Parts: sequence; structure tokens; C-alpha cells
Amino acid sequence: MSLWGGRFSQASDDDLRALNDSIDFDYVLYAEDIEGSIVYARALAHAEVITQAEAETIIGGLRQVLQEFDSDAFEFAEDDEDIHTAVERRLIEIVGEVGGKLHTGRSRNDQVATDFRLWAMRAAENLASELRQLQSALIAVAEPHCETVLPGYTHLQPAQPISVAHWLMSFFWMLERDQDRLRSARERMAECPLGSGALAGNPFPVDRRQLAADLGFERPGENSLDAVSDRDFVADLLYAASLCSIHLSRLAEDILIYSNPAFGFITLDDRYSTGSSLMPQKRNADPMELMRGKTGRLIGNLSGFLSTLKGLPSGYNKDLQEDKEALFDSLETMHRLLPVIAASVASLAINADAMSDALSEDLLATDLADYLVKKGLPFRRAHHAVGAIVRKAAEQGAALSDLDLETLQSVSGYFAEDVAAVFDFGRSVQERKSFGGTSPGAVKLQIKRAKSVLRQ
Amino acid sequence: MSLWGGRFSQASDDDLRALNDSIDFDYVLYAEDIEGSIVYARALAHAEVITQAEAETIIGGLRQVLQEFDSDAFEFAEDDEDIHTAVERRLIEIVGEVGGKLHTGRSRNDQVATDFRLWAMRAAENLASELRQLQSALIAVAEPHCETVLPGYTHLQPAQPISVAHWLMSFFWMLERDQDRLRSARERMAECPLGSGALAGNPFPVDRRQLAADLGFERPGENSLDAVSDRDFVADLLYAASLCSIHLSRLAEDILIYSNPAFGFITLDDRYSTGSSLMPQKRNADPMELMRGKTGRLIGNLSGFLSTLKGLPSGYNKDLQEDKEALFDSLETMHRLLPVIAASVASLAINADAMSDALSEDLLATDLADYLVKKGLPFRRAHHAVGAIVRKAAEQGAALSDLDLETLQSVSGYFAEDVAAVFDFGRSVQERKSFGGTSPGAVKLQIKRAKSVLRQ
Amino acid sequence: MSLWGGRFSQASDDDLRALNDSIDFDYVLYAEDIEGSIVYARALAHAEVITQAEAETIIGGLRQVLQEFDSDAFEFAEDDEDIHTAVERRLIEIVGEVGGKLHTGRSRNDQVATDFRLWAMRAAENLASELRQLQSALIAVAEPHCETVLPGYTHLQPAQPISVAHWLMSFFWMLERDQDRLRSARERMAECPLGSGALAGNPFPVDRRQLAADLGFERPGENSLDAVSDRDFVADLLYAASLCSIHLSRLAEDILIYSNPAFGFITLDDRYSTGSSLMPQKRNADPMELMRGKTGRLIGNLSGFLSTLKGLPSGYNKDLQEDKEALFDSLETMHRLLPVIAASVASLAINADAMSDALSEDLLATDLADYLVKKGLPFRRAHHAVGAIVRKAAEQGAALSDLDLETLQSVSGYFAEDVAAVFDFGRSVQERKSFGGTSPGAVKLQIKRAKSVLRQ
Amino acid sequence: MSLWGGRFSQASDDDLRALNDSIDFDYVLYAEDIEGSIVYARALAHAEVITQAEAETIIGGLRQVLQEFDSDAFEFAEDDEDIHTAVERRLIEIVGEVGGKLHTGRSRNDQVATDFRLWAMRAAENLASELRQLQSALIAVAEPHCETVLPGYTHLQPAQPISVAHWLMSFFWMLERDQDRLRSARERMAECPLGSGALAGNPFPVDRRQLAADLGFERPGENSLDAVSDRDFVADLLYAASLCSIHLSRLAEDILIYSNPAFGFITLDDRYSTGSSLMPQKRNADPMELMRGKTGRLIGNLSGFLSTLKGLPSGYNKDLQEDKEALFDSLETMHRLLPVIAASVASLAINADAMSDALSEDLLATDLADYLVKKGLPFRRAHHAVGAIVRKAAEQGAALSDLDLETLQSVSGYFAEDVAAVFDFGRSVQERKSFGGTSPGAVKLQIKRAKSVLRQ
Repeated sequence: MSLWGGRFSQASDDDLRALNDSIDFDYVLYAEDIEGSIVYARALAHAEVITQAEAETIIGGLRQVLQEFDSDAFEFAEDDEDIHTAVERRLIEIVGEVGGKLHTGRSRNDQVATDFRLWAMRAAENLASELRQLQSALIAVAEPHCETVLPGYTHLQPAQPISVAHWLMSFFWMLERDQDRLRSARERMAECPLGSGALAGNPFPVDRRQLAADLGFERPGENSLDAVSDRDFVADLLYAASLCSIHLSRLAEDILIYSNPAFGFITLDDRYSTGSSLMPQKRNADPMELMRGKTGRLIGNLSGFLSTLKGLPSGYNKDLQEDKEALFDSLETMHRLLPVIAASVASLAINADAMSDALSEDLLATDLADYLVKKGLPFRRAHHAVGAIVRKAAEQGAALSDLDLETLQSVSGYFAEDVAAVFDFGRSVQERKSFGGTSPGAVKLQIKRAKSVLRQ
Repeated sequence: MSLWGGRFSQASDDDLRALNDSIDFDYVLYAEDIEGSIVYARALAHAEVITQAEAETIIGGLRQVLQEFDSDAFEFAEDDEDIHTAVERRLIEIVGEVGGKLHTGRSRNDQVATDFRLWAMRAAENLASELRQLQSALIAVAEPHCETVLPGYTHLQPAQPISVAHWLMSFFWMLERDQDRLRSARERMAECPLGSGALAGNPFPVDRRQLAADLGFERPGENSLDAVSDRDFVADLLYAASLCSIHLSRLAEDILIYSNPAFGFITLDDRYSTGSSLMPQKRNADPMELMRGKTGRLIGNLSGFLSTLKGLPSGYNKDLQEDKEALFDSLETMHRLLPVIAASVASLAINADAMSDALSEDLLATDLADYLVKKGLPFRRAHHAVGAIVRKAAEQGAALSDLDLETLQSVSGYFAEDVAAVFDFGRSVQERKSFGGTSPGAVKLQIKRAKSVLRQ
Repeated sequence: MSLWGGRFSQASDDDLRALNDSIDFDYVLYAEDIEGSIVYARALAHAEVITQAEAETIIGGLRQVLQEFDSDAFEFAEDDEDIHTAVERRLIEIVGEVGGKLHTGRSRNDQVATDFRLWAMRAAENLASELRQLQSALIAVAEPHCETVLPGYTHLQPAQPISVAHWLMSFFWMLERDQDRLRSARERMAECPLGSGALAGNPFPVDRRQLAADLGFERPGENSLDAVSDRDFVADLLYAASLCSIHLSRLAEDILIYSNPAFGFITLDDRYSTGSSLMPQKRNADPMELMRGKTGRLIGNLSGFLSTLKGLPSGYNKDLQEDKEALFDSLETMHRLLPVIAASVASLAINADAMSDALSEDLLATDLADYLVKKGLPFRRAHHAVGAIVRKAAEQGAALSDLDLETLQSVSGYFAEDVAAVFDFGRSVQERKSFGGTSPGAVKLQIKRAKSVLRQ
Repeated sequence: MSLWGGRFSQASDDDLRALNDSIDFDYVLYAEDIEGSIVYARALAHAEVITQAEAETIIGGLRQVLQEFDSDAFEFAEDDEDIHTAVERRLIEIVGEVGGKLHTGRSRNDQVATDFRLWAMRAAENLASELRQLQSALIAVAEPHCETVLPGYTHLQPAQPISVAHWLMSFFWMLERDQDRLRSARERMAECPLGSGALAGNPFPVDRRQLAADLGFERPGENSLDAVSDRDFVADLLYAASLCSIHLSRLAEDILIYSNPAFGFITLDDRYSTGSSLMPQKRNADPMELMRGKTGRLIGNLSGFLSTLKGLPSGYNKDLQEDKEALFDSLETMHRLLPVIAASVASLAINADAMSDALSEDLLATDLADYLVKKGLPFRRAHHAVGAIVRKAAEQGAALSDLDLETLQSVSGYFAEDVAAVFDFGRSVQERKSFGGTSPGAVKLQIKRAKSVLRQ
């Protein structure tokens, strides 16, 4: 049964049907579709478009259809072009012709927009909760390492010593911004299209505020023409997922680099490593490469869908059918990645010795300049002085602390015996105690704030 | 003067400098850079890193630099690789070596992140306010046309009659979602990086909460490593601008189609039309084509920048310098488009007669089905019955109302004399009075809500 | 059986396996995988790494595996993480331990690169051949309409009269450029990776030129490190498919606009139209909207995959596994679209009367200017003169030919009685007889060239 | 002077003009524009549309305009909305009204398409030639290092030893594919639009084959409607540049990682390194980060422009004006990057000792398996055996060669005294002598082929 054959003299071409049908992917919306129909049947009864008894019959039939889906007993018919057709077809089989009253004043345009929003609202919550798991894992690995020091990099070159906890917590806050993006996306999408009809609104006195409330939306859509063709919520989630994956691709890149033996800072557990068909020694951090690689896919889903939306004329256009596979794919990709990333992170072995071995005194050059500042030299001159010292040491192949005081003083008279105290990585970290800095104390407070965020 | 030459034995290659320097585009940040430096000088004094007198000297110098920029008297030096270098170089020229104290504990990493965020916060407000103008224009053109009827389309095929006001207001709400996206982006970005140093935090006791407050941020960034390399705010604005442009590309598409003579529904004013070098009669709606075309550019800026961010290792990387041109371009593009679009919309002539001529009775097929529903026929059967009638009429080349009652009754016994009343476009519109529908009353309430949104 | 477990003390995490395994989508490469293995077994024997008898056993086993796949009798095992593992596992089950000799000197890195290239070369040929069908359909519909005139548009505003054949043939040439892109992509990809090992090359004396030749490649890859991680061929096809879809999205846009009743220029057959669940009269050109909408998806697959490639370190990285689903999806999308678009085009009814009704004399303004040029007026002045005439006519609500000679002469003294001959749409078309122009003769030659291209 | 004002009663709005005008960026096309006009003037004379004398006057005037541009003496007028208007306006100032004859039968649509193609053909050649420089630099650095061994990586984990030359040459071949893409793009774009008019063709008997030949095209465009709106050549170059930048981003990533001190494999010259405003010791490889970061920008330019093209109706649309800034930006970006990358590569110091220190015996695990294969063990079993040995060594914290024969034999009886010879990195490299492998001999042949490619 197609929902629309009456005015046509010829059936659709088979290839077109295969192309047009969305049942292969939109069947996952069955629960939302039935939920929307139950609520709509009630609204029709309330509006006295159908009788209370008809509503009950319809709702009973819909509950049976739901049960068939839930128990995997639902049988699709050849003609079920989408989930809406399938459910209505089966409903009429079960309850008879009265089932044909359900679509009164409703169009697939407002119906699918409602179903998909409901699905998206829930999917956004699931994603948020999976992100919470990863955020917790980051805290758990970070917390014991507030005093474990590794070289911090900018431009992938040694910059200043930081703590392992500080490094890991930097990703916590990226993910917290992702949470905020998901939150505001969910608030924006909580607008119910049902009751908008095909584009012009519903000519029967259904109560749209009630429909919205019954389905868990915050409010009805303000304009029926907009409501049926608004897919901002899809774009919002595609974007939120993309940026989240970008954050995780940065974590993945760090882990990939730090677990190369030249660094050796961390080791991924055997359970999260894979081997090679040819090279017996290989131990690859595949989860991290998949994280990084799939980020491209998520960016593509976003930019592709934005391109699909661009320049569409008013009202529903079939182009919008592209919304589902893109969003399903991006969210499913995140859903499969997140537990693996969370577990991989939780399994990380922190090799403090390798980190310590990698601390070179160059990382203290800023501290050396700060030493001169505290003696009274303006920073810009201190910076140049230390630059000259770094060059001198490099030319001699010496560490900074190997240079004798005389040499230092030849560059700046501000150097004195107490300069020796500068060459202490722990102290360098310790001194960054301003809000958000890498000192153990500041990081502990940071972790405390992070935990309180998680409890909200 | 470069800020960093000390440790190098050779100067930079000229081609590299040309590639590396950002002064050509980041000079627009001068006010934010100086503002950040003034506040930072105060913080250094408060932390007793410099004296109050030094702070005053520095601040005085910075004010002079600002004045030079504002009056277009600032002279760039060959070596000014970016706005930060230019300002510090000039400051030292003015106040002498004490100016070299300003950079104590600060890095260009936290400095540029702060400057650019300040700029972005303001740019987001400007965009929001330009959008407001366009939203007002939409209301102004819509309001007199709550009863002017045109064919509403889905799939670009005639669907149901709607009012001009309803059509135009659909864009109002799209833009209101854009406003919301801008609002939540601004809230998220109100996090001050200053005081994060290069990556590890500030070793001097500067008060980061105070820095944040003084600069108009809501709070300091939670983690110094994240704070210096977080460019989510850039992505958020690129995304918000892209989706906004997509909405406007849909408006543009409608206007382009409706102003084709085959439709003739609307006429763009001469001031917003352009001609052809060859064809003397041409009258093109260039603003709308530019709106639609530049939407691709905005999508490209977004997807390109997301790709730039993907897979970067921790901390600041030079790749991030790509943030500015992308955002400048997207926001400047919107800034140039929006007034033209707003004025074009305000100038639209609504050709009610052409719209009326385009109303064909096919648009009332749903009303005809609803008529049968009200007589007791289940909607699904009513739909099929009317489908058959539409086909019959099409085969005869007749309008629906040309079919006599006998013919109608041959399809469904529910048809009666009173069916004639269905063939009234005004009545069809009038009946969609549910919340968000196209009836004049519902649209007037919609406009009322829109105005109240604008007053917020 | 995993191919690589030996060095690990713990099995892979289940979630990681689910994420990592590619068998769900790469099983389609089975024929190419087996073909590559057969050729490789021969090469190993030729190099005397295995005996001729061993090669024959292995090849016999591989043929059986192929037959199992072809007859849908192959049974996947739980541990078959990808098609290479599945085939090798089954081979060893069939032929015993000698099957374990097949992977000598080979890595999955060169193996998958070879399989996927073979697949892509064939897929490119299929796409080319489906495009040929559409090109033929365009010619078939165009050819009878070399003298059927419709308004040609620029900026979607009436520009000059052109013939239906000219309009349709414009798409033929776009597609012919797509053919050329496919051809050059295929030539570039005809480089065999097999024999490159994991990255460093093959330590056994296998003949890579022979391997290439046996598999239908033009030549072996020049550098083993490049050969295993080169996915340019994937990008090339994603790009070629994207641009091809863009061309078809433009055709779709034209068809969508021209089949709106305001134009009514063309009618899509019932078999390629669809209806509405709510509005009984609807007749939507879904194939065209799907074509246009899915273009976004193809652009997204391309930009996403380019982003995945960006910044990868040397050698194979797991990120590259993203190559398959993207290419499969883009090519499958085209494969499903093209026959529908070709058949839709073939089914187009050309409504010459509606086209003729839409011809307004404004379309002849350039001809009017050319008339003046032929009388001796420089074109730029003729253009301005006709512009003034157009304005005059518009102000009077008159057609150009309604203006009397006196009025015309008030604008330019060059006008004479013979101006009347200008107002003939057929003549306007007739006059554009230069190469590539819209005159019936020129278009017939164009079609002749197109047919000869198709015969190549 | 606007070229089209005649039919308008009101001037364009100023904001629209600012938005619409393209002179700010399309002025760079002046030489191509004048060249096209000179050739067109000749064609008009040849077709006897203008006299030979008029043609000479016009050509003389155009040469003067060219000279003014070349000597930077050209003065733009307020009304010069694009380069075509500017040139025609100035021409008429110089030669008088006869200049107004130049535009006979020509439209800005075919004019700009011709100008921009000419520009693009030259730009493609420039890009190819800059790539040649970089390819030469790669060969020059590679050639002395055919026997310098470093660890080859897959998944960024140690895989097998390869030579420095092999590593560097892998990029040569990527760039050679880019060359091929540029070549085929240039061939495809060598199609002359001039003589297509606005869309319908030229009504004067200009010889389009001659026009094409005179301007250096291969042939005239086949269909005038297609010719004026075909921007495939822009997309082709945006794509070729993007993929090229992706290849270079991979080189950049390698250099960034290998120049981190943990690796220390290579050192970028001081001239191609930059420092930090805060950290005196910093030495960053900015050119490589800019290369990697700007790759995102190029991908964005491509995906944005594809999105702009998508769904445009037939014929020229103003959206197409977006073609220029995108292509200018991508090619200018490459033009600024390539010399810096080539010089940076040429300046690379190869630290053979650091590479040698990083060679761990794990890299020989495949060789160890191959040893067993040569003794008669099927590869798959050899792989598992060596996997077990690797694990044993790892558990003992021993190198593979530290395990005594007894231990090895406990895993496989095939091990014998001669296994010691396996532990030789040079020998491992030496053995990969098949075509395209890393053995010094194979790499020398590879370099020889590369040089011969460069000479073509």
C-alpha cells in the first residue's frame, strides 16, 4: 500500500522506488513514529475529529504494532516505502478502516519531522552520557598524576614542563564544551512540528501545545511552513559531533606520538592494541588512528549535509531525506568510538621514567628568563639574554646548567649563585600556580571543579 | 624587532617571513590587543611584578599607540610580524625599556587567544544586530499581507494556499534560531585565556578572575594548555554564520523563482537589480544570487577550518593561525550581505494579482478530502477518492470545480451540493487556524510573538 | 584466526574489534582479493619461494574459496576481521598448512591497496558506462527538438530564445568532461602496489612488473612506501563522482523549475513522479530532488575523505580504512541514481506550447540591438538605446513590437520599417549559427559530434 | 560607466554595488581580458562586422590600456564594476565611440569565462613548475642517502628499516601524480568559450575555431549554454591543489615529528625555523605547520566552491562570481608555500646517528620470520613463532639478539646458529631489492626514473 497512489495512472518505476524508499534506514524510528501517532490520535479525539472509542481502537492497534517491532515480529510488506507507511499499513490491517482516520490533518511532512526530532533528542542525550564516561576516565587517569612531569609541547617542540594530570585534563574541558553544545542544541530542537500539516497548518482544532507537551517537547513550532522543513537540529548535532570528534582526534594524536618508542611516555594496553599480518613485532594503537580518521568522516557528513540544505526552496523538498543517513552515521560512529576511547584511556600506562628522561633543561629557559626578571631585568631583555645562553649551550653541546656562572654573567650581570635553583623541573611546575596553571595545587582544584561539573 | 631572535644564528628566510607574518590581516585586532595589554599591565602591578608607576607609564604608552592606530597615524615597521610585535615594538619606542616588562609571564599564545576572542565576541554581537534588522524587515513586509494568498509549494509543486505573511515569517524563525546559536556561542566563548602563558600557566601571581572580569569575559579558562589552543569559538561562529547563510540562501532561492516572469509573484526594486552587458532587457536579482553563491563560501570556510583543527597535537600549533582569515572572511561576507538582503526584502513589491492568478484548484484537493472526512469518510479513503477525482479532472483538462456533482458522487457517495463551498482559497487559508498555521488570525499572533522576541 | 596474535598477551577488547573490523563492508572485495592472491602465488612459485606444486595447491584452494563466495556458500568465522583474513583462514582450512605460505613477503598493506584499486578500476568503468546511457538518453530526447524554442535564462531571468535540443545538449558535454575525468583517473590509478610489502618492499625476488601485468595494471608502483599508503585514486573517484553529481543537480534544478505549472515546459512521466500522503493532487519530481540532495552527500564524502588524509604521517595508518565506505557510498549512490535519471529524462514530455507561450519579446532585445548595430550604431550605444525602449515598453505595459516606429525613432534614428522582422523568435534562434550556437543547423552538427564521441 | 544601465529608472543601491563589484579582485585578469579583446576585434573584422581600420583603432587602444596597466598607470573610475567594464570604459575614452563596437555579439558571460580560463591555464603551468622545483629538491636531498637507514613506520610504530632516500622519494611520486592531475586539468580546460555570447551563441559570423587557436586554446566549447557557465576547470584546479597540499601536509607531519628532539632525525635550518615570544629556547618548524594548516584552507575552498555550484539552474548565474576568490586564494597559497617548502627541504640536515640510534631489533622481526620461511616454515607459522619471541624478549626487557639459541629453538626448531646474521639493519634494507623496494640499488634506479620524469 502506498499512501498516495490515487491520482496516478502508472505505478512508479522499480528503480525509482528502490532509490526513493527510506524504509531501509528509517525503520529505526518506529518507536518514535508510533509514539507520535498515539499522541496524535488522542489529540484528534480531544478535538472531536474522531470519537474517543475510535481513538482507543487506534491506540490499541498502534500498541500492538509497537509490540511487534519490539519483539522483532513485524513483517514488512513490499510496498512499505517508509516507516510511516509501514506502521499505517499494519495498523489498518489490525484495526480495519478506522485506522485510516489517523492521518486526518497530518502529513508525512510534520510526522517525519516529529519522529526524527524525538529520535535526535534522545540520541543527543545518549551521546552526552557516553561523553560523561570518557570525561570520568580522564579524571581517573589524571588524578594520581598531578606531580608526574612530562615535557609540554607547542609546535610539537619542547616548551615547558607540565604535569600529566594537566595534560589529560585539558581534554576534559574540550569535552565539557561539547556537552554545552549538545545542551543548547537539545534546547533549540525541543520544538514540536506535529500539527503543522504538509506546510500550511492543521485545519482541525488539534491542540498543538498539548501535542508538544505530550511528546516531551518544550513548545510547538511557531510557523508551520518552517516547522516541516527545518533541519537545523540535524545540522546542530552533526556539528556538535564533528567538533567533539576533532577534540578526540587531538587526544588521539598525542597518544599516537607519545606511545611511539622514541617518546615511550605511555603504553596502550594489549586489549586496545593490534598487530600486523606481516610484521610480528607490531603493536599499533588502532583505536586512536580510527578516532583520528573517522573525524574526517564526521566533518564530511556535516559539510555534505549543509551543502544539501543550501538553496532549497521553501517547504519540504525530498532533498531533506538525506538528513537521516548522515545523522545516523555520525552518531553511530561516535557511539562505537566513545566506549573504546574511554576504555583505552582508562587502560593507559603512564611511564613516568620515560617522561622524566625526556625533560631537558631547555624546557626551563623561560624560568631562567623569569629569574632575571625577578632580579630586575625587563622581560624582553631577559628573553634575549637567555636566548643567547641557549645558543651558547647548543654550540657547546652542553646543558644549560653546565654553563658556569662566569659564562652566564658574561651575558647578563644579573646572574648570581642562586641561579642553580632554577634547574628543577618540579619547581617550574610548582610555580605555575595561578588559576588554570599546571602546579599540583592548581590542577587539584581544577579536578575538583571538573568533578563538580560531572555531578551536575 | 622580532620578539624571539636571541637563540638563532641566522635570520629567517624572506619567503618564510612573507608566509609566516600575519600582520596583513591581524592588524584589525589592534584595539583588542592594546586593551588586553592595559589590563595585563594593571594585573602585573597588582601582583607587584612591576610597580604602579611602571604600570602607569606602560598604560600611557599603550594609550598613545591606540590613539595612533585610531587616527591612522601608526607606522608599521619592516619587522612587525604580527600586531602583538607591532604594538610592543612601538610601546618600547615610546616608553623605553620599561615597555619590555609588559610581556612578563605572558606569551603570544595567551595574548592572541585573548585578543581574538574579544574581537569575536563583538563581531558576534554585530552579526546578531544586523540579523535583527533583517528580521524587522521581514515583519514589516509580512504584516500587511496576512490575507494575501499565494500557492504554497512542497517539492516546488503546488501544495496548499498560504498567505504571503506566513511565507515570509517562516524565515523570521529560521533567523531567530540563528540568534540563539549566536547567543550560546557567545556564552561559551566568554572564557578568558589571558594568564595562561604559553601553555603551562602564569608563574607570577596575576589574578586571572580579575583579568577576565576587566576584559568583559565571564570567567577565566579552566586549563592553561587548553586555553591557548582552544579555537572552538571560531568554529562556533563559522558554523553559526554558515547555517544562517543557508537560511538566507533558501529565502534567496524563493525570491529568485518568484521573481521569474513565469511566476511574477514579487518584484525586486530597481536599486537591487542589475543588468547585462549584452542583453538590454535584463533585470537580474543579483543580491539573491550572491547570497546563495556565497553560502558555499561560508560552508567552505567552516569545513576547511574544521579540517585544519583535526588531528593537531596538544598546545598551540602554528596551524591555528588559519583561524583568523577564515573567520574574518565569513563575518565580513555576512556583514556585506545582510544590509543588502534586508533592504532588498524591504523593497519587495508583492504582486497579489499574479499570486492570485497562480492559485489553481488543485491546491484545494486536501480541503476536498477534509470535506469527505467531515462527512464521515476515513481520511485515507478520502485521499484516494480525491486522487481519483484529480486524475479525472486532469484527463478532461478541467478544473476540480468544473466536475459536476454526479461525477463526484460516482467516486464517493459522500459528496453533496455543499461541496461547492470548498472551492474558496481564502476559506482554505482561514481554516488553518491551529497554532502556527497560515490563517490570518494565527499569523497575526505569530507576528505578535515575533515582535515580542525582537523587543527582548 | 587473527593474522597477528603472536606477540600479544591479551586478546583485543570486544568493542575495539567491532570498531576495527572491516569485514562488514570489505567483503565485497572478495573476487579482487582472491585474484590478487592467485597471481601472487604464481609469482612466489616463479621466484622459487614456493614450489610449483605448492602454488597449484594454493591456487586450487583459492578457486574453491572464490566459488564458495560466488555461490553464496562462504561461511564467515567469528574471527574474520577483514576479507583478507577470511580468505586466508578458509584457504588454510581447505589446503592445510601450505596455505600459510601465501603471505610470504606480502603484507595486508600492499594486499588491500591492490584489491581496492582493482575494484575501483572496475567501478570507474561501470560508472562511465552508466553515464553513457544517460548521455544517449539526452541525445535521444534532444534530437527531435532542434527547432522547438524555449526561453533561455541567465540569472533565472529571460535572456534569449534557445532550442530545447541546445538546452539538453549542454548537459551532454558536462557529462563528457566527467567521462574524461574518469578516464584520466583510471589511467593514474593503474599502478600496482602488490610486491611492496608493508612499506619497505619485497625481500623475495617476485617480479613486480609481471604482477602488475597479470592483474591488468599498467605498471608497478614506483616506491613501496608510497604505494601502500597512496589513496589518491579514491580521492580522484570521489571527486569525479561529486562533480558529475553537481552537473546532474543542475539538470535536476532545471527540470524541477520547468515542471512547475507556472512554467509547465516539461512533464515527468507518472512512473518517475510521486505523490503525497496528505495532498491528493501532488505530483512531485522526487528523482530530481534526490539527485540534487544526494549531491551534497557526494561532496561530503569527498571533503571528509580529504580531511582524513590530511596530515597523516608516512606509511600506512589505520585512518586509511575510511577509504572504503566513502567510495562505496559515493559510487553506489551514483549507481542507483543514474538509471533513474536516464529513464526520467527519456520519459520527459516536452510541452512546446507552454514554451512558446513563455516567449516574450524581451528575449529579443539583444536582436533589436544587433539590428541597430547592423545599421551602423556601435553596439554599446545600441544597447543603451534598446534599454531605453525596453523601459518605455515596460512603463506602458506594452510588448516591444507594440511600440510604433515613431517611438522607436525617438530613441534612435537608425530604426526603420524593417525592424518588424526582428520580432521573430525562430529567426533569433536561426541566427546563432556560429560553432556551438543554438541555431538548428549548429545544434545538429553538435549532436553529430556528440554521437561520434559516444561511438569512441 | 556601467555597461547596462539603459532600462533602469533608478541607480543601484550603494551597498549592493559594493557587494556586487568584482573589480577589487578581478583586476588581475587585465592582461587576459585585453588579449581576449584584441583577438575578438580581429575576429569581428574578419567577419566584416567592423572594418579593418576600426579593428586597428580598437587594437591600438587596447594596447595602450595594457600598457597603462603594465606600468601601473591605469586609473580606475568609480563606476568600474569589473575589469571588463574598466577596460571598455578606458578604451572608449582613448579611441572614442568606435570602442563601443567591440562588445558586438559578445557578452561578459563568454568574456569572463575566456579571461579566467586563460589565467587558469597559466596559473596551472606556474604551479606545475613550482612543484618541479620541490621535486628536484627532494631528489637532491635523497640521493646522497641511499644507504642512510632510519626506522620506517606504519601506524607511527616501528615497522622495518628503510633508507632516507626511499622515505624522501615517496613524496616525489605523490607530487608526480599531482603533476599528472594538473596536466589533465589543463587539457580539459583548453576549450574556448569566446563566441558563445550570453548563452545562445554568436549571431555574427565570427570564426570560433580561429578565436580558440589565436588565444592558445585547443578547441572552441561545443555548446554555448554550457560554455558560459562551465566552471569545471576551477573545480579541477581547486581539487588538484588540495590533493597536492595534502601530500605536502604528510611530508610536513613527518618533518615535524622527526625534528622533535625525541626523534632528532632531522634539523630544519635556522632560516626556516622560528622562535617564541616567551620561551627563549624555542625553535619551531613553522613552515611545516603552515603547510599542514593551510591544507585545511585548500580543502575548504574546494568543498565550498562545489557547494556553490550545486543545484544552479542552467546558464550563467551570479553565484559563479565566487569562482575567482576561491581559486586565487588556493593558488596564491600554494605559490607562497611551495618555495618555502622546497627551500626548507633543501636545507634539511640529516642526522644519521640519531636515526641509527633509533633502530631497534624489533624492526627486524619480519626478517626473522623470513629466515624461518627460508628454512621451510610456512610464513603464517613463522609469523606466530616470531611473535612469541618478540613477546618473550619484551618480557625479559631484552633485545631479540640477546635471546640465546636455546630459547629461540624452544619456539621453533628451525632456528640455527646462522640466525645471528639476521640482526643487521643494512642487510635488511639491502634485501628489499624488488622493483620499488628500499634497497640502495632499487632506490638508485628509482631516482634515475625520477630524474628522467623531470627531464620530460
